[in-house]
Amino acid sequence: MKIISGGVCAAKGFQASGVHCGIRASRTKRDLALIYSSVPASAAAVYTTNLVKGAPLTVTKQHISDGVAQAVICNSGNANTCNANGIEIAEQMSALTAQTLGIQARDVVVASTGVIGQPLDIAPIAAGVGPLKAALSDKGSADACEAIMTTDTRQKEIAVEFTLGGKTCRLGGIAKGSGMIHPNMATMLVFLTTDAAIAPAMLDKALKGDIQNTFNMISVDGDTSTNDMVCILANGLAGNEEITEEGEDFSVFMKALNTINIHLCRSIAADGEGATKLLECAVTGAKDEATAKTVAKSVVCSSLTKAAMFGEDANWGRVLCAIGYSGADVDVDKVGVSFHSAAGDVEVCRDGTGVPFSEELASRVLHEGEIDILVSLGDGSGSATAWGCDLSYEYVRINGDYRT
Amino acid sequence: MKIISGGVCAAKGFQASGVHCGIRASRTKRDLALIYSSVPASAAAVYTTNLVKGAPLTVTKQHISDGVAQAVICNSGNANTCNANGIEIAEQMSALTAQTLGIQARDVVVASTGVIGQPLDIAPIAAGVGPLKAALSDKGSADACEAIMTTDTRQKEIAVEFTLGGKTCRLGGIAKGSGMIHPNMATMLVFLTTDAAIAPAMLDKALKGDIQNTFNMISVDGDTSTNDMVCILANGLAGNEEITEEGEDFSVFMKALNTINIHLCRSIAADGEGATKLLECAVTGAKDEATAKTVAKSVVCSSLTKAAMFGEDANWGRVLCAIGYSGADVDVDKVGVSFHSAAGDVEVCRDGTGVPFSEELASRVLHEGEIDILVSLGDGSGSATAWGCDLSYEYVRINGDYRT
Repeated sequence: MKIISGGVCAAKGFQASGVHCGIRASRTKRDLALIYSSVPASAAAVYTTNLVKGAPLTVTKQHISDGVAQAVICNSGNANTCNANGIEIAEQMSALTAQTLGIQARDVVVASTGVIGQPLDIAPIAAGVGPLKAALSDKGSADACEAIMTTDTRQKEIAVEFTLGGKTCRLGGIAKGSGMIHPNMATMLVFLTTDAAIAPAMLDKALKGDIQNTFNMISVDGDTSTNDMVCILANGLAGNEEITEEGEDFSVFMKALNTINIHLCRSIAADGEGATKLLECAVTGAKDEATAKTVAKSVVCSSLTKAAMFGEDANWGRVLCAIGYSGADVDVDKVGVSFHSAAGDVEVCRDGTGVPFSEELASRVLHEGEIDILVSLGDGSGSATAWGCDLSYEYVRINGDYRT
Repeated sequence: MKIISGGVCAAKGFQASGVHCGIRASRTKRDLALIYSSVPASAAAVYTTNLVKGAPLTVTKQHISDGVAQAVICNSGNANTCNANGIEIAEQMSALTAQTLGIQARDVVVASTGVIGQPLDIAPIAAGVGPLKAALSDKGSADACEAIMTTDTRQKEIAVEFTLGGKTCRLGGIAKGSGMIHPNMATMLVFLTTDAAIAPAMLDKALKGDIQNTFNMISVDGDTSTNDMVCILANGLAGNEEITEEGEDFSVFMKALNTINIHLCRSIAADGEGATKLLECAVTGAKDEATAKTVAKSVVCSSLTKAAMFGEDANWGRVLCAIGYSGADVDVDKVGVSFHSAAGDVEVCRDGTGVPFSEELASRVLHEGEIDILVSLGDGSGSATAWGCDLSYEYVRINGDYRT
């Protein structure tokens, strides 16, 4: 498994582009993205569990109900959610894209991210699809990635190369997401492309299985967006024998998918709104995996733990407290907590009780940009990892006037 | 029902005091509080649901298992939680208090609030109980209230006068709580006293019933403390016929208790760490009360809604989003949202879709210190209210270096 460049254009037959069409006033940022496969592809997607669902999700769900898609159109600056004409606008976005590309409207995945409840004007999109098609390129991943960003400060892009039945395959992705991440109007959107041949049902199975340990284990702020979507297209151009059941090939594919998704998860958490640190909480010794997941997520979601990490304060009581209210069945008298980073390790709690530690060492450990919070529960072999970020002044500033 | 002064000393036979004993370095803030009833009183309490429970809670639970207590001792600056000798220290606090007052140790309620996981030194407490007894006064409520504060910026104190069977009764309370409020090391502590005569079982029933609509409906930051406690003492000195069953007298008592608790809830939420605004979310038209409660709490807990309120930004999409992920069974196409304050009303969403509104009016409404978020669900007659506060830069500053 080799990390390569190219993002969503790494896999054979995929092109992408991003332009500024005018949804956002600022001309310095692209706001409309296109990903295109030269042939129809197997398609699978997962969507937000929020009952308030963006209109584009409803339309996409219907379009890929046959397991096939060939293009993704996505705008930023407006979520097209809670608008009376949302479905109509999302259908128009698909139709305009299909017409320009000469494909079927039902083979278009449509997504939007931005403010909720403000009507989305179709005019800039109608004017933008022509230039978007003209700009399609196998070096277009970074432009597409920029076009889907909202409060993101960094592009999130990766690809890997692997082998299936002797054939070289590639899988790559782009993501956006910075606030309202619990997977989750800053919305989390992830688009993945691969040239591996895989049947729609197996692609769906792979995606739904992997997100339980990846995107569903990140939290920036505990708010679940209305427009979340992770979508994958597999066009089969690598020429491998199509994956139609579980087995070695499926395992290799799952491993590739997991590698990409973990990278994107870490990138999203590290770029959480206002974040100065990536937090990773690794729980071990749980009685089962579900318990480990509940504990890991509770720790990365705790506002008090997040604020303590921003302040580089080894206030492990915040961690214990979050474990205690997680709802997981835990023997608090067996809990151990350590902080780890590139600067070293510091154990702060054993058997539910504080242990003396060097504040000077703790301070060095917590001064790093990536902090691991290691929790041992002493109760079994279940483990899980969750990702989050610290809570900073900047988060408040960003969200105090998001609309303006 | 008349609002009166006096706090926990309003009811007959209750005295209180607060001194600086030295748990906190700062000599400008009292850190040890005492509440004393001249006669043994019926007692009831509710405790945090966090699995990590402060040692004082364990000791208190045991002491009032017979439904009787006569004094409350409480320190701030150290939570006496996650310490190897926590129970021993809490028992020593009780014993020292009982000895000084000439009462039974098992009639002492003990509570602590402050940092978790740092051994609590008994020496300053042992030295403090004498002066604390000497300072007991029927004007001591404010001193006791100051002594239990941590990051609180305001004292939270109230009392009411009411009549039971022709006898004048009084019920009053003090509270502390500013962060880690989701009832909930900034801990929420509430001590209530009344001279009404009420059997321990009925007192327990009244308290457990009322907190479901009061203290369990506040959230500052979604973190549930390890040391929460709401405790009530009823000494019967008002001379009313003891309440031993449901009926008119119990209803009057419940009304008095609810009045006190709503006031303290609003005070705690308004004084949330870093808060600049009190948020009240009133949900109506739910299919049942449980649904209304889930929705109301989800809205006041949403970091994005809280940050938008801090920024005085009528970003109602944040409210819709929080309703959608609350887990409640809601028809999002029927949801209505308005913002209300002393400056007026502004409707922002009807039937799940945005309605045009004056940004100038919205800005005036949201500029106030108390904001009501009114949510109608159009689905029945269930209603509920939850209280919270905005999310400010100051919350982050306070919790970035809480220990230091």
